[in-house]
Amino acid sequence: MDMMDLIGRRAKEAAGLLALLSTVEKDRAILAIADALEKMTGQILLANQKDLDAAVQNGMSTAMQDRLRLTPERIASMAGAARECAALPDPVGQVIEGSNRPNGLQITKVAVPLGVVGIIFESRPNATVDCAVLCLKAGNACILRGGKEAIHSNTALAGVMRTALESVGVIADAVQLIEDTSRESAVALMRLNQYVDVLVPRGGIGLIRSVVENATIPVIETGAGVCHAYVESSADLEMAANIVHNGKTSRPSVCNALECLLVDSAIAGDFLPLLARRLDSHKVEIRGCPNTCKILGDRAVPAADDDYGAEFFDFILAVKVVTGIDEAIAHIRTYSTRHSEVIVTRNLTAASRFTREVDSAAVYVNASTRFTDGGEFGLGAEIGISTQKLHARGPMGLRELVSYKYIIAGDGQVR
Amino acid sequence: MDMMDLIGRRAKEAAGLLALLSTVEKDRAILAIADALEKMTGQILLANQKDLDAAVQNGMSTAMQDRLRLTPERIASMAGAARECAALPDPVGQVIEGSNRPNGLQITKVAVPLGVVGIIFESRPNATVDCAVLCLKAGNACILRGGKEAIHSNTALAGVMRTALESVGVIADAVQLIEDTSRESAVALMRLNQYVDVLVPRGGIGLIRSVVENATIPVIETGAGVCHAYVESSADLEMAANIVHNGKTSRPSVCNALECLLVDSAIAGDFLPLLARRLDSHKVEIRGCPNTCKILGDRAVPAADDDYGAEFFDFILAVKVVTGIDEAIAHIRTYSTRHSEVIVTRNLTAASRFTREVDSAAVYVNASTRFTDGGEFGLGAEIGISTQKLHARGPMGLRELVSYKYIIAGDGQVR
Repeated sequence: MDMMDLIGRRAKEAAGLLALLSTVEKDRAILAIADALEKMTGQILLANQKDLDAAVQNGMSTAMQDRLRLTPERIASMAGAARECAALPDPVGQVIEGSNRPNGLQITKVAVPLGVVGIIFESRPNATVDCAVLCLKAGNACILRGGKEAIHSNTALAGVMRTALESVGVIADAVQLIEDTSRESAVALMRLNQYVDVLVPRGGIGLIRSVVENATIPVIETGAGVCHAYVESSADLEMAANIVHNGKTSRPSVCNALECLLVDSAIAGDFLPLLARRLDSHKVEIRGCPNTCKILGDRAVPAADDDYGAEFFDFILAVKVVTGIDEAIAHIRTYSTRHSEVIVTRNLTAASRFTREVDSAAVYVNASTRFTDGGEFGLGAEIGISTQKLHARGPMGLRELVSYKYIIAGDGQVR
Repeated sequence: MDMMDLIGRRAKEAAGLLALLSTVEKDRAILAIADALEKMTGQILLANQKDLDAAVQNGMSTAMQDRLRLTPERIASMAGAARECAALPDPVGQVIEGSNRPNGLQITKVAVPLGVVGIIFESRPNATVDCAVLCLKAGNACILRGGKEAIHSNTALAGVMRTALESVGVIADAVQLIEDTSRESAVALMRLNQYVDVLVPRGGIGLIRSVVENATIPVIETGAGVCHAYVESSADLEMAANIVHNGKTSRPSVCNALECLLVDSAIAGDFLPLLARRLDSHKVEIRGCPNTCKILGDRAVPAADDDYGAEFFDFILAVKVVTGIDEAIAHIRTYSTRHSEVIVTRNLTAASRFTREVDSAAVYVNASTRFTDGGEFGLGAEIGISTQKLHARGPMGLRELVSYKYIIAGDGQVR
């Protein structure tokens, strides 16, 4: 694909220039983008309307249409997020560590941009701006490949950003959108090893699997979150009900929402009816193991095998009664996507076993999994939640969008 | 491949146990391995002799036979390296950072093992022990896949290590060797996503390309080093000749050896004859651009296009006369593998431009590229030199063999 090669080459050239920009220059570019988004709101909304019209014609669900829809408020909020990003500390140039060696070599380990970041995402057009701005702040050029259903919105947003960059003397190719939304263009991006340093897929499990399967460039897996809560026998049951209710109902469409509850058999008879009443507020469907169904009667339906490990994105909760912490940890080991899990307990041994033995990006004691988020962790805006162990784990913000290099100063040393 | 699935499952189970071992337990296991290697030297040498006999029959070059050969001294040196690794600080459990959030959540970011590390390597059998011991210290289970030509040696070494682990009550599957040396077994390992967290290929560019092309699990590229020296016009020419001579001749078979020299045209006429005389010591073949050949006459041969960017592993140096730092940096950008590069200069502006603009793992001013090594950097033993930007760049030692997780302690917080 000649077009992709050209896009890759331009991105690499832009990355070379971006890496040398000062913080002031990068922040000015981001603020120019924020201003331009607000100024061009009318034009962006017109483009978005084309996508919405097509969505209606294609019978897209109302929920999906809502994800696709831009409004003046949503555009203002994108601009606001960009301004917040400009205010964050620059991760580039930070001296990570250094030492003088016995032979007089002075070694310094310095943060540098990753280079070119490819991002493949699905329907929400705000990802276009969020990702571009974070990449820019970290000195990276980005190549964006959004979904077909948002192509008019994404093209308008990318155009506004590129014009804004040029207006402050920053190379427009710092932000490129692939306008070809065919499967071929996505696969071509996944194999642009010569130009792209890292690929971040943002989306559902199908997209992420396709990227892992096809990419030859390094990938950071994000997103898929099958989060578990384990209510241990010593738990404060009110607190446990709160945490489960919050994890399931406050925003079921996001990756840090709760999908599965494990309850210790010693308290299941007390806890499950209490929880079921709380979950009535959102008519949460409970899919339970035989013991759960015995306790809850009509309030639960039998869980199928594949309800464990499912990411429902909906007011549905899988529930299983377990014999203790060993079974809970084993269940999590089998079904979790290693995103976020929580134990509710008053027992110190149980808490410390759970945090040591559960191998997830975020392991909670007595708090909602919904907190797994760059902002909530105090790390600033994020490009996604990594569920792999290489490079970045958990919220992936500015500090995870850089690499490092060693600079070694000598006066003629040889080995 | 059922066998590979079984190996993967065992490794994952072992990783779960290793992650919970204390530093004392891990060090005891490593010291048991060191002792066992020395005690079983006779048996290991017998196995090695089988590989050497096959090598002779297959007409392997003397240099390659030397890489394959084990001796009592080399086995003692493997044991010594293991003991040094036991003495290094444990990277697991280190608190990387932490904070209290305004809502009372206590967030701690803690180093944890990667899990299961797959290592694909070529002929030198000492890699078997080096890699296993480093993985063990970092709490990782490893799956080793060595070359066919060393299979008897590797099988003996893995057997000794597994018995030693069992003797101190550590699960033997912490170290597994794939005895099937077919291409299929390597490809199967590269796609064991369910069990393997990271794959580290150690070897030539052919092996690394095959892994990048075929792997679906995250890979850390190591090894390929096309290192450049740029002798700037203000350089101390004696120092420059020393640095180039050392980079090219002290050990041409390793990845931090120098492959290409760029000389500023202002000093090429003085420097190249001086350097050529120094390189006579090792009869280094100089493959030069037309200007180099004009200056050096018979002492150089014309460089072919593909001599730039080549990793010679031999006493061969590509040379090009450049018009200044811009051309030098552009050449490096095109031909380097982003491993190590050096500028020799007395000019501050040139030094700081070079270190900022050259995008390699290690960028030197006035010192030999041969220092790119975990031990020389004061970082301890390494599993390889990473030439990619994700996760680890440059020497990859114990600290690069771990990931991290967030542990969040609350008292009922919801969002």
